[in-house]
Amino acid sequence: MTYCVGLLVEEGLVMVADTRTNAGLDDISTYRKLHHFNVPGERVMMLASAGNLSVTQSVLSLLAEGVSGEDGEPPLKITETTTMFQAAQLIGKAIRRVRVIEKAGFEAANLRFSISLLFGGQIGNEPMRLFLIYSAGNFIECSTDAPFLQIGEHKYGKPILDRAVKFETDLYDALKVSLVSMDSTMRSNLGVGLPIDIAVARRNALDLEVSHRIEAGESYFHDLRERWSAALRAAHRAIPRPPYGPAAR
Amino acid sequence: MTYCVGLLVEEGLVMVADTRTNAGLDDISTYRKLHHFNVPGERVMMLASAGNLSVTQSVLSLLAEGVSGEDGEPPLKITETTTMFQAAQLIGKAIRRVRVIEKAGFEAANLRFSISLLFGGQIGNEPMRLFLIYSAGNFIECSTDAPFLQIGEHKYGKPILDRAVKFETDLYDALKVSLVSMDSTMRSNLGVGLPIDIAVARRNALDLEVSHRIEAGESYFHDLRERWSAALRAAHRAIPRPPYGPAAR
Repeated sequence: MTYCVGLLVEEGLVMVADTRTNAGLDDISTYRKLHHFNVPGERVMMLASAGNLSVTQSVLSLLAEGVSGEDGEPPLKITETTTMFQAAQLIGKAIRRVRVIEKAGFEAANLRFSISLLFGGQIGNEPMRLFLIYSAGNFIECSTDAPFLQIGEHKYGKPILDRAVKFETDLYDALKVSLVSMDSTMRSNLGVGLPIDIAVARRNALDLEVSHRIEAGESYFHDLRERWSAALRAAHRAIPRPPYGPAAR
Repeated sequence: MTYCVGLLVEEGLVMVADTRTNAGLDDISTYRKLHHFNVPGERVMMLASAGNLSVTQSVLSLLAEGVSGEDGEPPLKITETTTMFQAAQLIGKAIRRVRVIEKAGFEAANLRFSISLLFGGQIGNEPMRLFLIYSAGNFIECSTDAPFLQIGEHKYGKPILDRAVKFETDLYDALKVSLVSMDSTMRSNLGVGLPIDIAVARRNALDLEVSHRIEAGESYFHDLRERWSAALRAAHRAIPRPPYGPAAR
């Protein structure tokens, strides 16, 4: 299982991803799911992946080596695209390419071809954008009304995002809320686990401002988890007792 | 969609269920999903249902009219069972019965036979128990380690239960937390909606202490939602800023 969240707020872009992969509960490993294609001063791009690990790795390799055209165009690398929309299209093309290659083998093994990606960043003077790309290669874009997108095990961590994130939210508050969202997910689904990769890019900076791996035992994240738990307990204690029982009469 | 949660704590049993049913987004209705089989002084039983409405209604009718045996036993009504385990078995039998009746029609229409039930209560001096009954008719029982069970759209509302409910939790605190859990679910899934039915039975009282429908606009629930939202906002604001950005250096 996987949980990744991307937030595109006024000041910039945040992406947070766990690193746990599993082929059954008895075969758990750590793999990076948050990747960067970063050319400081020219472009900053982040890509977080969920789904079949072989598919996501093949897509990443294709994007680095160049995706050859479906109709004879020369191969294009993701770092050669000139807009984020073109780059999202290229990722879609890479997914369709891998599907063609893997189709027969996946069908023979009765495997589901599954991949979903969060892709965000900025190229030159183009706007900063954030996309969710599906396994068919189609994609949607993040809006200012709901300035976040999620992939993987998304439900446990959504209530806090729904409540706490607006387009105007401060960049590092957005990072904080996504860590709370990750914490809620990790508590409820063992398939999502530490370490956590985080990335932050400020709008128009064309570089990563933060690229960090939070390891188990790191004090800030440990403290955040404790504080959040304590705050939730205090929050529900502060709500008055329901007026339905006999003691309320 | 549906969300129902049952909590079996030291002092008793709480069940909370929404009432929204839909056959597509353009066909939404209100149906009771929380039912009682209550004989004061003798037994208290609550049953909450999720899944195909025709299946759950047929199961309920069978339980009231009597489920005839698979091997020639005389029909038994749920109010005639002598232990909660027998009653849960009877519900499983009713589900298998309905499946036999509906199988051909469901297959012809390519419909999935889906039902899941929360069933809790107490008969006489027997212990108070809470079960989750699956569509195969098998069931599991709630434990004191995790004193709640959920059916339907359960993920959004699970983090608060994981954190806030213990076996020792006060009965009306348990009700309050389940309303918070319901609120989180309603915010994230439009298929779960008001009114909400609630029921409370105190251990060894052999009667319902609360049986109430919370309608839209009811002030306590409105206030709970507002307070919870405000508390969550305050909670994440109170967590220190992540130490990863440049301003932290």
